[in-house]
Amino acid sequence: MRAVLKKDPAPGAVLVDIPVPKPGPGEVLVKIKATSICGTDHHIYVWNEWAQNRIKPPRIMGHEFAGEVVELGSGCLKAKVGDYVSAETHIVCGLCVQCMLGEKHVCQNTRILGVDTDGVFAEYAVVPEENLWYNDPSIPPHVASVQEPLGNAVHTVMAGETRGKTFAVFGCGPIGLMSVAVAKAVGGTWVVACDINEYRLELARAMGADLVINSLKDDPVQAILDATKGVGVDVVLEMAGAAPVYQQMVKVVRPGGRIALLGLPSRPLTVNFSDDIVMRGVTLQGITGRRMWDTWVMTRELLRSGKLNVEPIITHHLDLADFARGMDLMTEGNCGKVILYPEGLK
Amino acid sequence: MRAVLKKDPAPGAVLVDIPVPKPGPGEVLVKIKATSICGTDHHIYVWNEWAQNRIKPPRIMGHEFAGEVVELGSGCLKAKVGDYVSAETHIVCGLCVQCMLGEKHVCQNTRILGVDTDGVFAEYAVVPEENLWYNDPSIPPHVASVQEPLGNAVHTVMAGETRGKTFAVFGCGPIGLMSVAVAKAVGGTWVVACDINEYRLELARAMGADLVINSLKDDPVQAILDATKGVGVDVVLEMAGAAPVYQQMVKVVRPGGRIALLGLPSRPLTVNFSDDIVMRGVTLQGITGRRMWDTWVMTRELLRSGKLNVEPIITHHLDLADFARGMDLMTEGNCGKVILYPEGLK
Amino acid sequence: MRAVLKKDPAPGAVLVDIPVPKPGPGEVLVKIKATSICGTDHHIYVWNEWAQNRIKPPRIMGHEFAGEVVELGSGCLKAKVGDYVSAETHIVCGLCVQCMLGEKHVCQNTRILGVDTDGVFAEYAVVPEENLWYNDPSIPPHVASVQEPLGNAVHTVMAGETRGKTFAVFGCGPIGLMSVAVAKAVGGTWVVACDINEYRLELARAMGADLVINSLKDDPVQAILDATKGVGVDVVLEMAGAAPVYQQMVKVVRPGGRIALLGLPSRPLTVNFSDDIVMRGVTLQGITGRRMWDTWVMTRELLRSGKLNVEPIITHHLDLADFARGMDLMTEGNCGKVILYPEGLK
Amino acid sequence: MRAVLKKDPAPGAVLVDIPVPKPGPGEVLVKIKATSICGTDHHIYVWNEWAQNRIKPPRIMGHEFAGEVVELGSGCLKAKVGDYVSAETHIVCGLCVQCMLGEKHVCQNTRILGVDTDGVFAEYAVVPEENLWYNDPSIPPHVASVQEPLGNAVHTVMAGETRGKTFAVFGCGPIGLMSVAVAKAVGGTWVVACDINEYRLELARAMGADLVINSLKDDPVQAILDATKGVGVDVVLEMAGAAPVYQQMVKVVRPGGRIALLGLPSRPLTVNFSDDIVMRGVTLQGITGRRMWDTWVMTRELLRSGKLNVEPIITHHLDLADFARGMDLMTEGNCGKVILYPEGLK
Repeated sequence: MRAVLKKDPAPGAVLVDIPVPKPGPGEVLVKIKATSICGTDHHIYVWNEWAQNRIKPPRIMGHEFAGEVVELGSGCLKAKVGDYVSAETHIVCGLCVQCMLGEKHVCQNTRILGVDTDGVFAEYAVVPEENLWYNDPSIPPHVASVQEPLGNAVHTVMAGETRGKTFAVFGCGPIGLMSVAVAKAVGGTWVVACDINEYRLELARAMGADLVINSLKDDPVQAILDATKGVGVDVVLEMAGAAPVYQQMVKVVRPGGRIALLGLPSRPLTVNFSDDIVMRGVTLQGITGRRMWDTWVMTRELLRSGKLNVEPIITHHLDLADFARGMDLMTEGNCGKVILYPEGLK
Repeated sequence: MRAVLKKDPAPGAVLVDIPVPKPGPGEVLVKIKATSICGTDHHIYVWNEWAQNRIKPPRIMGHEFAGEVVELGSGCLKAKVGDYVSAETHIVCGLCVQCMLGEKHVCQNTRILGVDTDGVFAEYAVVPEENLWYNDPSIPPHVASVQEPLGNAVHTVMAGETRGKTFAVFGCGPIGLMSVAVAKAVGGTWVVACDINEYRLELARAMGADLVINSLKDDPVQAILDATKGVGVDVVLEMAGAAPVYQQMVKVVRPGGRIALLGLPSRPLTVNFSDDIVMRGVTLQGITGRRMWDTWVMTRELLRSGKLNVEPIITHHLDLADFARGMDLMTEGNCGKVILYPEGLK
Repeated sequence: MRAVLKKDPAPGAVLVDIPVPKPGPGEVLVKIKATSICGTDHHIYVWNEWAQNRIKPPRIMGHEFAGEVVELGSGCLKAKVGDYVSAETHIVCGLCVQCMLGEKHVCQNTRILGVDTDGVFAEYAVVPEENLWYNDPSIPPHVASVQEPLGNAVHTVMAGETRGKTFAVFGCGPIGLMSVAVAKAVGGTWVVACDINEYRLELARAMGADLVINSLKDDPVQAILDATKGVGVDVVLEMAGAAPVYQQMVKVVRPGGRIALLGLPSRPLTVNFSDDIVMRGVTLQGITGRRMWDTWVMTRELLRSGKLNVEPIITHHLDLADFARGMDLMTEGNCGKVILYPEGLK
Repeated sequence: MRAVLKKDPAPGAVLVDIPVPKPGPGEVLVKIKATSICGTDHHIYVWNEWAQNRIKPPRIMGHEFAGEVVELGSGCLKAKVGDYVSAETHIVCGLCVQCMLGEKHVCQNTRILGVDTDGVFAEYAVVPEENLWYNDPSIPPHVASVQEPLGNAVHTVMAGETRGKTFAVFGCGPIGLMSVAVAKAVGGTWVVACDINEYRLELARAMGADLVINSLKDDPVQAILDATKGVGVDVVLEMAGAAPVYQQMVKVVRPGGRIALLGLPSRPLTVNFSDDIVMRGVTLQGITGRRMWDTWVMTRELLRSGKLNVEPIITHHLDLADFARGMDLMTEGNCGKVILYPEGLK
């Protein structure tokens, strides 16, 4: 089968022809219909500092996908051959206290598909049965594939009350863009989106942002306080991981509001906790992964009811062999989600 | 009447003899039975940087008290002469969005009794009727007086789930000490208390701490991880406002846990948000004041049912005229709560 | 001034000319711009059994309104002459445990405007300052007037999770109809509405119902189970108070679902608690009034953001003098909300 | 091996000698150390109407136990031989919407151990690996065995807020008795227990009830309203399934309070929904099973921390062969939990 392999501890990746893997006990083999490129895949491709510390090549890349179960390993009791599936990419232990409390997304022993195990940029992939998500048949493969990052958006938006609330989204990468639409779909009444890339701000508008701010041209703090008559917003979604945003976000959240943090700053950051957090009763929420499985259920319901449409941010469709072009698009930043098709473009 | 006055913008305060004030519309006059010294009063007394920026002398100091309503201003419809009362010390607008949502403790227009208005270190004080808390008759004045800081502890502990949870309390000032006992009273199963003062660690033990750590002698991170078999605690209560604690707290909270911040660091602090907060799904909660009025109801129920006993940390009882000795005790740190009696000691 | 008076303990009411009332301490005088007829007003008008037991004529009727503050009683500190207001109609004590816990809508000592005190079917009315809601200026008087029943809908819908949920609404009176639209606005993905009146089912469709069922023609249990593939709905809103609905609702809610009860059955009803409630983990929620003030804030945000539009169910606009025609419309059932204008139609 | 078999569709059961079963895929074999008799086992033994409709003999009885894993079926990835385990007795599908939302206790396709499959009144039993609960080593087998019904108590008590709340428990069978202690352990400030059996009321007192009422001698409604100064209790736990209790419970819950229903009435019951539920804003919660796995975690934490002690209600210890005597004790009602030992009494 064809697969995109991170062969060496260096920038880049190669398309290889390798045997189809065999599912072990509690695992299934999936034929991949569509797979999408995540920022994490891009980090691995360009071989940034995080990747150098985490990835042990050779490793088949990729973790977002939709496909069909074609073979069951021993002991599989729920999946059936022919099931149309995607997967939660956090492989969890099921035994630590977080897992027992239903907080599997912060399992003490998490491994990640396509990072710590071989991934899905391939014609076939092995996935633990416990990680399978059984897709709604009305959702096409290219949309089903992006349910995983969409789940990040849903998890971040829904980590607190959203109904009747105002939002500021900092960072309009694909998850930020999806968050704009999710916030509106779950009762948010007003959403402002901030970024420094006009292409992405245009997409933010298409996803339903009521106001967009180019932080290179306008001060987002002043603009947001003006738009909210000095009150600030109920909820901030930090999806940039950028140091300047950490200073802005605490100034635009209203007292008693919440700031959900999904972006990953590349270094420790300084916050005026006394004045900005404690005295104003603000909550900061670190968010990772997706809740298993309420986030997935919510994501499905929003998609199949039509309350949420992510098509505007799925901007490119490529044959798997063109993965390098997808990576280049992401380096340039003028794209939403890039889909790769292991079976080729129809 | 006798009153403790911050007369000049300089360290210290003076006992003065002044006329009894008159309650205006919507205000009542209270005869003070007992009043207690808060850290804030101490800041004003020693005239630290915060006080220099906030306080406009002359100002009657003090905000924690229990007393009796002796006169009603016009338009008072709920209070009656003879009511045994204490008061919420946040004077709020009742009109901003926080107030309308029941988050009055983070009112956009808060003023504070004894800070922005004349206070209660006096024989009589004027208080807005809306701020009155009608004390349970079974609670004696010296305990009723400390309901206000106890409410800070209750608010901090109860800002999330507590039942079946493990706690680490950093900082064993009076509110930290009260938090130890509150955590145990509301279903907490294990509490570790950390401080650098042995006198206060002894009080922590008296309040029910299962483990106490002198952070000058032992590394609290290692000690807590050892005691929890590497898992960490479910909840951290930051009540020190100290820079080293900010580094420790993120290492001892378990993934998915929460850190409630009540302490006020004197300067901005640095946190490794990526590794310690975002990737581990940790929540940081800025806490201020008390919820009106659920925190007060909870505080009353814990006290009158006997589930909570704060007598061990009420360590000193003084005549109001001896306020300076109370302030000195607080400077030395070898005290719990200090009560002042405007009517003198019986 | 002109006012609609329930003069005698008998069916009907009369338009009278009486002096403008004076606001007492803590009260304001409001000039009424628009007022709307509630089912309760209709009960009082037709003098049903409930009205005979509760109402003590003479009584000025009406409690839903929008108007302008024209005079302040003594001790009013928040309202100003000229404020554009509506009012919460539950006049509460502010001292019982429910009030202290922020559950004022179930105050132990509630009195109701226009039921236990003189109401607002008049040119002017006296209202406690504490009950005033300061209207958003973008909301016109006829819409502002119906915020009170709309608040019932918002309160009922939002008494639990709504995001990604499916709903069945039983009873398409005005509050049921508004609930359909509220459910969709706060993240509901699918709403079925049931009634026996085609006029109202048509309005339900206009308010966004995905499916409407005439329970006289089709079995709602079978139809809803068919539409949900046998699963049932997440949430039932009981807004009919009808005995047959009580049998249907427990069969269409999914295990673990909730049933919010706003309708008032005229007699005790029988439920198979073992099989339908306990074994299936179903929750029944009695709902009354509106939460003060989160329900009002939510209602405002939904209206002013345009996420919610109630114009389709405001079907009639009449001069106050034509109140009897409004009452007749309600008897016939072929109406949504009826607005009365004390200043006459423009 | 020895096992208690419901051999025929008639009252009684027999001790039989049968081969040790083999675990299938995803199953483990457990050597039983202790097992306890549930009311459900008693229903099956006496062959009541429910049992006649549900049970298909021959069936090995029993579902509460503690034991040791001695053999693994194929595909088991988490359990290890030697693990000290108990089990959740609801065998769920893991695929229905309830399961995906983390509400497995109301799975649409639940089967019950010892009811729909062979049970644990035996020297060995086969249990699905997914149902295993890994016991804390500090908890002895006779206590670990009763974690399952204790979990019912924990689930019922904790289905809403408990901290600072007052409780009325109706029905002092083992789960009611355990609920008294659980309520106190998780922040409940006052608990009244009602029953008609003096032996059980004595146990209620031992478990921490602040007041006990023999409903044959005193009117519980009057007694509870008197004790709460007319307010009523915050929470009612209905654990009797008795018709008179359904009339009492709605009169003693305060407005805004909750009633958790665990008891199973033998027939449909009538409630005055308008006056008692809707107008007073009361919530009725049907409760079944235990949340997987938060209820189990909570149960463990309460036991191992010593906040909860259930020894007082474990009243009898018998050899498995004496199961009939255990059943007779339950018929008489003068017992708490009865433990059976398949290995015999030490």
